[in-house]
Amino acid sequence: MIVVMEPKATESQIEKVSNYLQQHGFKINLNRGEVLTVIAAIGDKRMISTATVNSFEGVHEVKLIQEPYKLSGRQSHPEDTIIKFDNGVKIGGLEKPVLMVGPCSVEKEFEGLLEVATAAKEMGCEFLRGGAFKPRTSPYDFQGLEEKGLEYLKEASKRTGLLVVTEVMDTIDIPLLNKYADVLQVGARNMQNFKLLKALGHTKKPVMLKRGPAASIREFLLAAEHIMFNGNPNVILCERGIRTFDSDFTRNTLDLAAIPVLRKYSHLPVVVDPSHGTGKRYLIEPMGKAALVAGAHGLMYEVHHDPDHASSDGAQSLSIPQFKEITRNINKLIGRIDYDNKASHREEKLKEAKRK
Amino acid sequence: MIVVMEPKATESQIEKVSNYLQQHGFKINLNRGEVLTVIAAIGDKRMISTATVNSFEGVHEVKLIQEPYKLSGRQSHPEDTIIKFDNGVKIGGLEKPVLMVGPCSVEKEFEGLLEVATAAKEMGCEFLRGGAFKPRTSPYDFQGLEEKGLEYLKEASKRTGLLVVTEVMDTIDIPLLNKYADVLQVGARNMQNFKLLKALGHTKKPVMLKRGPAASIREFLLAAEHIMFNGNPNVILCERGIRTFDSDFTRNTLDLAAIPVLRKYSHLPVVVDPSHGTGKRYLIEPMGKAALVAGAHGLMYEVHHDPDHASSDGAQSLSIPQFKEITRNINKLIGRIDYDNKASHREEKLKEAKRK
Amino acid sequence: MIVVMEPKATESQIEKVSNYLQQHGFKINLNRGEVLTVIAAIGDKRMISTATVNSFEGVHEVKLIQEPYKLSGRQSHPEDTIIKFDNGVKIGGLEKPVLMVGPCSVEKEFEGLLEVATAAKEMGCEFLRGGAFKPRTSPYDFQGLEEKGLEYLKEASKRTGLLVVTEVMDTIDIPLLNKYADVLQVGARNMQNFKLLKALGHTKKPVMLKRGPAASIREFLLAAEHIMFNGNPNVILCERGIRTFDSDFTRNTLDLAAIPVLRKYSHLPVVVDPSHGTGKRYLIEPMGKAALVAGAHGLMYEVHHDPDHASSDGAQSLSIPQFKEITRNINKLIGRIDYDNKASHREEKLKEAKRK
Amino acid sequence: MIVVMEPKATESQIEKVSNYLQQHGFKINLNRGEVLTVIAAIGDKRMISTATVNSFEGVHEVKLIQEPYKLSGRQSHPEDTIIKFDNGVKIGGLEKPVLMVGPCSVEKEFEGLLEVATAAKEMGCEFLRGGAFKPRTSPYDFQGLEEKGLEYLKEASKRTGLLVVTEVMDTIDIPLLNKYADVLQVGARNMQNFKLLKALGHTKKPVMLKRGPAASIREFLLAAEHIMFNGNPNVILCERGIRTFDSDFTRNTLDLAAIPVLRKYSHLPVVVDPSHGTGKRYLIEPMGKAALVAGAHGLMYEVHHDPDHASSDGAQSLSIPQFKEITRNINKLIGRIDYDNKASHREEKLKEAKRK
Repeated sequence: MIVVMEPKATESQIEKVSNYLQQHGFKINLNRGEVLTVIAAIGDKRMISTATVNSFEGVHEVKLIQEPYKLSGRQSHPEDTIIKFDNGVKIGGLEKPVLMVGPCSVEKEFEGLLEVATAAKEMGCEFLRGGAFKPRTSPYDFQGLEEKGLEYLKEASKRTGLLVVTEVMDTIDIPLLNKYADVLQVGARNMQNFKLLKALGHTKKPVMLKRGPAASIREFLLAAEHIMFNGNPNVILCERGIRTFDSDFTRNTLDLAAIPVLRKYSHLPVVVDPSHGTGKRYLIEPMGKAALVAGAHGLMYEVHHDPDHASSDGAQSLSIPQFKEITRNINKLIGRIDYDNKASHREEKLKEAKRK
Repeated sequence: MIVVMEPKATESQIEKVSNYLQQHGFKINLNRGEVLTVIAAIGDKRMISTATVNSFEGVHEVKLIQEPYKLSGRQSHPEDTIIKFDNGVKIGGLEKPVLMVGPCSVEKEFEGLLEVATAAKEMGCEFLRGGAFKPRTSPYDFQGLEEKGLEYLKEASKRTGLLVVTEVMDTIDIPLLNKYADVLQVGARNMQNFKLLKALGHTKKPVMLKRGPAASIREFLLAAEHIMFNGNPNVILCERGIRTFDSDFTRNTLDLAAIPVLRKYSHLPVVVDPSHGTGKRYLIEPMGKAALVAGAHGLMYEVHHDPDHASSDGAQSLSIPQFKEITRNINKLIGRIDYDNKASHREEKLKEAKRK
Repeated sequence: MIVVMEPKATESQIEKVSNYLQQHGFKINLNRGEVLTVIAAIGDKRMISTATVNSFEGVHEVKLIQEPYKLSGRQSHPEDTIIKFDNGVKIGGLEKPVLMVGPCSVEKEFEGLLEVATAAKEMGCEFLRGGAFKPRTSPYDFQGLEEKGLEYLKEASKRTGLLVVTEVMDTIDIPLLNKYADVLQVGARNMQNFKLLKALGHTKKPVMLKRGPAASIREFLLAAEHIMFNGNPNVILCERGIRTFDSDFTRNTLDLAAIPVLRKYSHLPVVVDPSHGTGKRYLIEPMGKAALVAGAHGLMYEVHHDPDHASSDGAQSLSIPQFKEITRNINKLIGRIDYDNKASHREEKLKEAKRK
Repeated sequence: MIVVMEPKATESQIEKVSNYLQQHGFKINLNRGEVLTVIAAIGDKRMISTATVNSFEGVHEVKLIQEPYKLSGRQSHPEDTIIKFDNGVKIGGLEKPVLMVGPCSVEKEFEGLLEVATAAKEMGCEFLRGGAFKPRTSPYDFQGLEEKGLEYLKEASKRTGLLVVTEVMDTIDIPLLNKYADVLQVGARNMQNFKLLKALGHTKKPVMLKRGPAASIREFLLAAEHIMFNGNPNVILCERGIRTFDSDFTRNTLDLAAIPVLRKYSHLPVVVDPSHGTGKRYLIEPMGKAALVAGAHGLMYEVHHDPDHASSDGAQSLSIPQFKEITRNINKLIGRIDYDNKASHREEKLKEAKRK
């Protein structure tokens, strides 16, 4: 921690800050300039709050010099985390990127969901996604099928062998969801619902944490830290677009640079959702491909058996024929760039990983 | 709803959309131009999702022409909502703006809290705020005293007569909080925690809903709508700063224009939090005054008996002497502009209210 | 400057950076921690670019500890700058806030402009604003009357005694504008047109610099620095709204906290434009009042003799009767809060100024 | 244009708006609902300003239904624009993506620039970029070599056969730059310097227009429209990152979705600058590759012969060995995905283009 004192800070103010930091286990170096004094405090930031130091009289600014995410960060955990499922699917590291597809919400007719799941299996996807509890901006919109939806997902999973990803919205639903889901998703709007993160830390299920629309990468990793700190190391990060000034053509701005940034600073797997990230069907393919080339460990996108009558987010859902065409192109890209020639691929990947 | 078809849309596509809208109770007017066709659909938008209409082939854009917040909007409820408490305090309409003050978190020593509450009472404040459950970005920061904190708040309230405002973070804590609090606060990070909003809709306690850092005014009113739709009309809106590209000097950008905008489009009371909205002690007074002049029904700001040792947000908390000086200035402003000469004041206010 | 080395930085990398900094006149303190090394370099940042230091191998991050705006900052110029005009009008410091009003663009009929100017004079305003050269987002919109517009402004100024504020868009227009204007305005879109800023530094005319819609306060002060560094100390800062994710109800987000921030860190006068800052007529009065209470040295807002037929920005222009009503209320606020009882007012202001 | 009247709008207000629109050549359809009336006006928006319509009494909202960019939009120009240079290089359409590389600024020693240019040629790049006039946020930073820099660029171009891209900052420099440059670049900060855009419309040189950090895609296309409207159809669009709330890890947020969006709505070539777009050397390769996969017609990135001593933006410049490695990878990607098997590639591309 670097504490920059104000130009007019008095000796006693400097001393007060220094003493406080020393009492909390920091080693202090005083740097006195002609204009101002800088206190370099080396130690474990997590013991004290920077806000507290900031509030001492005479302090101009407090700057952190070490990243506050200890468990999610790569510094103390240099190896990539790879999450493994019972059926052999893996996410992370140099593993083949996964595809998670399905409707935004699970709807009344099971047949539609099954149709989607069957097509997904056919195209080599690994996960079936679908919301049973739906967070809707307006109370007048469809709120989800709840447990019935979970049963449908489980049934479709049994018939196809796909793993189930579904959203958890409240701590009280965790036991129920645990029965049905393979991955519990935390929605973007709940990224800083700390009670929920804490409760998910007490399960062992993999958690897919979606980045909040106004969450910085730092806060995103700190949200993952909440889950990990409470005991669950199986966190998948999901970039799904941030909110910016421009929403004329896309609902959010998909921040693809977050992929290599997260892979550099964290060891956790990173998945990208181009459906929510753009809100437009025609952008799923180019942005999905771009995400994979930038290093994503997987993609999540929306498919619906009848998008014209979808109860939510129809405009960003692919129909089944569109889904097949796009997924064929994506598979080709994944295959060609990375997985056809495994030997050369792995070597290259490892070389690249070392460079970072 | 206005549906703009693409220039190349076919007759059958236009018909398909028109039929769908008519089946859902909309009255249709077709506007055929040389280049494109526009379908004006008059009816109750809440019956269908715009996303669904958007996903029909040939649709270029769907534009809403009526605000989707029926209960929180002024259109169907032209009179200001005034929330009344048992001790006679009122918030909203032309009532005297209220002051809600206290520490960010309730801490271990009751004496500190009492000191703050006593000073608050002395300065004429109406509410004591303080967090017992704390949403903290980092899991390494202080997470709150929990029930012990609530007891402290209740005790301080008993001794001073102040009403208690405290944050609710999870649906399962609502019954507990109901026993201690007069106003349940929904934090900015939970503004779209729809499970929580729904549960709060089933209580009768006034809810103070803080605007999310990336929430538009529209979404803010829709979040209020969730609470009201589930049965609780007592919602107070709280502007507390939004996240923008500039955070060098202030943590958030306090959006004061939201006050007159919310007062024009909604009947709910609007309170402003200049402590979180700026993150800086020296900005509380100018921004607090500006908020009142812009029409706020109240202010919420942080006071701590010993900010240098606060366990959270010390940098934005006032010490007790600072609090007294600033509150004196604010009281003077409120008194001078609005409440000294009640007769002329009310007349002016009513005139102004009519203009809107 | 604080240079944080990467955890794995080698001795020779640390030495290389240290030597480079010493060669450029910095005094070096090395702070070695268990995990990482921090180099505190005390000296004049302006001699070297932080980007250069950042690009040395082994450097994790470079943090500035002194503000880079030497001329516009308060550190080296603690007294408020007050800009004085020949007719006795002053802007800045503890002087009475000024009002700058007029149409967005000067239009074909001189009579309309004169009508506005006459009303402005009647209401005690000090400046007539109006664009002769117009920056328009679309090439199909009205582009301004050019020199004819300047003649009209000058004529209206002669007849009423108001000072003229008008926008300069290109270095080649400066000599022409110098003949007609009392204050040269730099539009928000040109805030970082450095050629223009430099050229304005070579004039002596006061320059009103509008904040860019995506400019941080730091960049805003650095833009002022460009003008001052080239020789012109007469800069007025104008906050006019920044671009954020929410533009449903207001065109921009008026950042009123920028007023006290700029007044704390700079000595330059600060004016606020609630017309462009909100884009809505009904927000001019509440936001204008709020700006003054927050410490603005003046307001600029748009008035048109016939807003329904204005060639630009009609929706945010006041009609003359609306202008008179609002200006009456603003004058009352300015008079009541600050200027009626000059003696007590000045004392209070000076006390407050000292506190900062 | 869709004009939504307020619920309380009177007959005479509705009539006033309708008449005004009819007088300006619009065909009017009135849609009367139970709550409100909507006027659909079909005609050429460019004849009138929406702001004017917005300012009529009784108008709630005005919504455009046709894109305002006539020349840069694809609607009236369905074929891709391909810009051709004398040496056979082409940008746009289905042509092979181009690479534009070089230092941020041209510096004192010609040898360094030549070294970069030689390496660029060796790696198959088509353009040498470098700034002779530099827009610098701080007046204390290096401002560019000016004409000497242009001579260096021209000389390096002669020796290597690369085309020259350099920035124009002021209308008065255009004749000078025309002598030296093959492409005139408009910097992000000047994207809405309309005087400059207009003047560039009067030349025939290709113009590379960088997106402003706070410019929406709509405004970006409207800025291109200014150049085209004034006579120059040779505009290249360059995405270089937008400003968002998160700048901890990257200077800007590179908006890669802008590539397919621009390609859908415009026929102009789209180039991406991952150096400025991220501000980090390690992000150039992944983001450059992702941009190409998403459909970019070219990349621009920074190379310096000695980044540790660069006079600007060293942290985001590649050294020559880094440049060669990354460009080798990029070439491999371009070659493999798109250009090895020309026949199948073109067919696929054309198929894809038709789908849009």
